[in-house]
Amino acid sequence: MPTPRTRVKRSPHRAVYDRDEIYAILDEGIVAHLGFVDGDQPYVIPILYARADNLIYLHGAAAGRAIRRLAGGLPVCLTVTLIDGVVLARAALHHSMNYRSVVVLGTCRPIEGVEQREVALRAFSEHLIPGRWDEVRPPGEKELKGTSVLAMDLDECSAKRRGGPPEDDEDDYDMPVWAGVIPLQTVARTPITDPLMRVESEPSSAVLSWRPTAQRR
Amino acid sequence: MPTPRTRVKRSPHRAVYDRDEIYAILDEGIVAHLGFVDGDQPYVIPILYARADNLIYLHGAAAGRAIRRLAGGLPVCLTVTLIDGVVLARAALHHSMNYRSVVVLGTCRPIEGVEQREVALRAFSEHLIPGRWDEVRPPGEKELKGTSVLAMDLDECSAKRRGGPPEDDEDDYDMPVWAGVIPLQTVARTPITDPLMRVESEPSSAVLSWRPTAQRR
Repeated sequence: MPTPRTRVKRSPHRAVYDRDEIYAILDEGIVAHLGFVDGDQPYVIPILYARADNLIYLHGAAAGRAIRRLAGGLPVCLTVTLIDGVVLARAALHHSMNYRSVVVLGTCRPIEGVEQREVALRAFSEHLIPGRWDEVRPPGEKELKGTSVLAMDLDECSAKRRGGPPEDDEDDYDMPVWAGVIPLQTVARTPITDPLMRVESEPSSAVLSWRPTAQRR
Repeated sequence: MPTPRTRVKRSPHRAVYDRDEIYAILDEGIVAHLGFVDGDQPYVIPILYARADNLIYLHGAAAGRAIRRLAGGLPVCLTVTLIDGVVLARAALHHSMNYRSVVVLGTCRPIEGVEQREVALRAFSEHLIPGRWDEVRPPGEKELKGTSVLAMDLDECSAKRRGGPPEDDEDDYDMPVWAGVIPLQTVARTPITDPLMRVESEPSSAVLSWRPTAQRR
């Protein structure tokens, strides 16, 4: 699966090319960073996404300048990074992060047709919070026509991962300083009800039981 | 401060150009996403960074291919995104995220001289975990020579922010469905001691008391 462009050159022992592991990282992430070029200037924007099979879906208002250009087949790079911990070494320079990240190269194509767009938007919703789609008002035809949905194949991609304890220089292990990892986790706090609620409703079990993937472990 | 390239065009009501707020977002983030171009292909990589005054520092092994090209003045985009919550609306299409993000455009210049590099590396360490620098072995001259440190001015930058409850269509407020926000927070878990410890040491108060900025609120 790695091409010369996605083969990991720095720290190749951290490379991951296994498709299931790449899928798992993409499914755990919430926001991706999407890079594209305008002139010779790169731009990187945070964007919601969803994975379905070997595809990444992206969406935005059809009027968006970036979305229009992306739909035209501009080369893009989509990166998803999960932060797992702060690595505290004995030497200042060996401090690091534990992380998992996926880099996808390719181009986007527009999803045409309201039925296909609805399939993609449902995938978004299920990625964000499973079960929510069936509780809310589905998009109408006018909304579907006004929404750009893009798809990107997961053909050219790779992942990188750092896990475990610090790696110090041999002599430094004799230093009397604590070393290790502070794990980091993204957690959900108590839901905050919209102050504009008109009809009294309790959060459903889909809302109350939802946790970011990391918190479910 | 915004230029035509950094002025926010989509959802301009979410734009932030206040320098203190931009600094606060950069100081709260841990990992940035750095975009650069090779040929016509953009690449986006996760990278550690630190802010000092009106500068962003980046660093990597001096041998890194990307770092070498960046030091040559390649145009880059550095984006830092903080995820604050999942916004649950009454309509599927109005689901969203609460977030704060900063986009910085510019070029990197290499920091030459071991003293200046040490100043920058100390800023990195303090950004990651305040107080740690004074507990560990500082970098030696050879290490400093083998480390590339880059600086990027915070001249051309802007931020975007979404906060608060969902924004639904007027008619949808009559629906009997709970709407609101599930806040997300990055939290530190109990430190894991390096299994290769040779000298018995307890974590210092700098380690034990450290929390991601979001968790300190």
